[in-house]
Amino acid sequence: MTANTRRKLLETGLQLLLERGYNGLGVQELLQATRVPKGSFYHHFESKQDFALRVVDCYMAEVHAGLDACLDDDTRPPLQRIRRFFELSRDKYGREGHFGCMLGGLGQELSGTSDVFRRKIENCFVVIVDRIAGCLALACERGDFDAETDPHAVANLILNCWEGAALRSRLWRHPAPLDDVLDFCFRSLKAGSAFTP
Amino acid sequence: MTANTRRKLLETGLQLLLERGYNGLGVQELLQATRVPKGSFYHHFESKQDFALRVVDCYMAEVHAGLDACLDDDTRPPLQRIRRFFELSRDKYGREGHFGCMLGGLGQELSGTSDVFRRKIENCFVVIVDRIAGCLALACERGDFDAETDPHAVANLILNCWEGAALRSRLWRHPAPLDDVLDFCFRSLKAGSAFTP
Repeated sequence: MTANTRRKLLETGLQLLLERGYNGLGVQELLQATRVPKGSFYHHFESKQDFALRVVDCYMAEVHAGLDACLDDDTRPPLQRIRRFFELSRDKYGREGHFGCMLGGLGQELSGTSDVFRRKIENCFVVIVDRIAGCLALACERGDFDAETDPHAVANLILNCWEGAALRSRLWRHPAPLDDVLDFCFRSLKAGSAFTP
Repeated sequence: MTANTRRKLLETGLQLLLERGYNGLGVQELLQATRVPKGSFYHHFESKQDFALRVVDCYMAEVHAGLDACLDDDTRPPLQRIRRFFELSRDKYGREGHFGCMLGGLGQELSGTSDVFRRKIENCFVVIVDRIAGCLALACERGDFDAETDPHAVANLILNCWEGAALRSRLWRHPAPLDDVLDFCFRSLKAGSAFTP
């Protein structure tokens, strides 16, 4: 029962944070939407900040599930696995209403004033980059792209370009910028020359 | 005197919005920082929203000044002009404290809940893309990249990738992601194959 309440708060909070951002989300509004009493919220979470950090953990659990499903799929070549991860993320954004990526949203909103969120969000990006870089290293071993290329540098570039496209897809409420950036990044990877000085 | 007051509010507001975002900025705080009385603020601006929209106009006036200085400089080839615009933007972000791009910040924070800001910010991006596309068309005429490539599509890609790098530079408080994305995009342009199916 108490675990259910916690899960309900986190799930509803995830969608509300995605749409409205941190400062646009009222705890009162969350309590009304979930029909959870105030005391129960503060039983599970120390503060609104603590709650939002736990929502980011839930978001990252979903990201890791997506990475597991895609990057460990050895029926596909490594570059296809990475692309598929982003395509499934695009589909997820669509189901949520085309609000883009919560990490980009909270990162933009809060990192100017809160070192707690700045470090939290940057750490999430680092973890995602590490996993993508691991899969890029496999592609490199197969000779799918230039062995001189640093997989971490390439993974950072792809993720950063993706985040900009996610902002634009949030403005457009449409997935086209996400598809365009994937085409661009993966064609560049194939062409090779874009990643090496 | 009254024009000075208005300018002081807009200039201080620009830096505060960049750091704290819209919901993180209190009008009271702005009045204290500028020593402007409340009545004077509401003489110049209908509301906080109206104020923030005028700050975006000021931000865009700076962007246009940068575009004018770079894109119209016919002592340089067109691709170099575009790259220089982004390099000067990177330098400006640095002088402001590495908070990245205000359009990306407000776009992420507000576009989920406010159609006014969603349209305002998207319109700013469209205007920037149009100007960059115009300069890309000149590069195309010179044969600097594949004539099959749609300058508007390329300009959108470059700007979107830039915005993601600006988010990451905000998280890092460092310009490196901006330099990396410029190297990537301009190498891809030279290589050509990344932009054409």
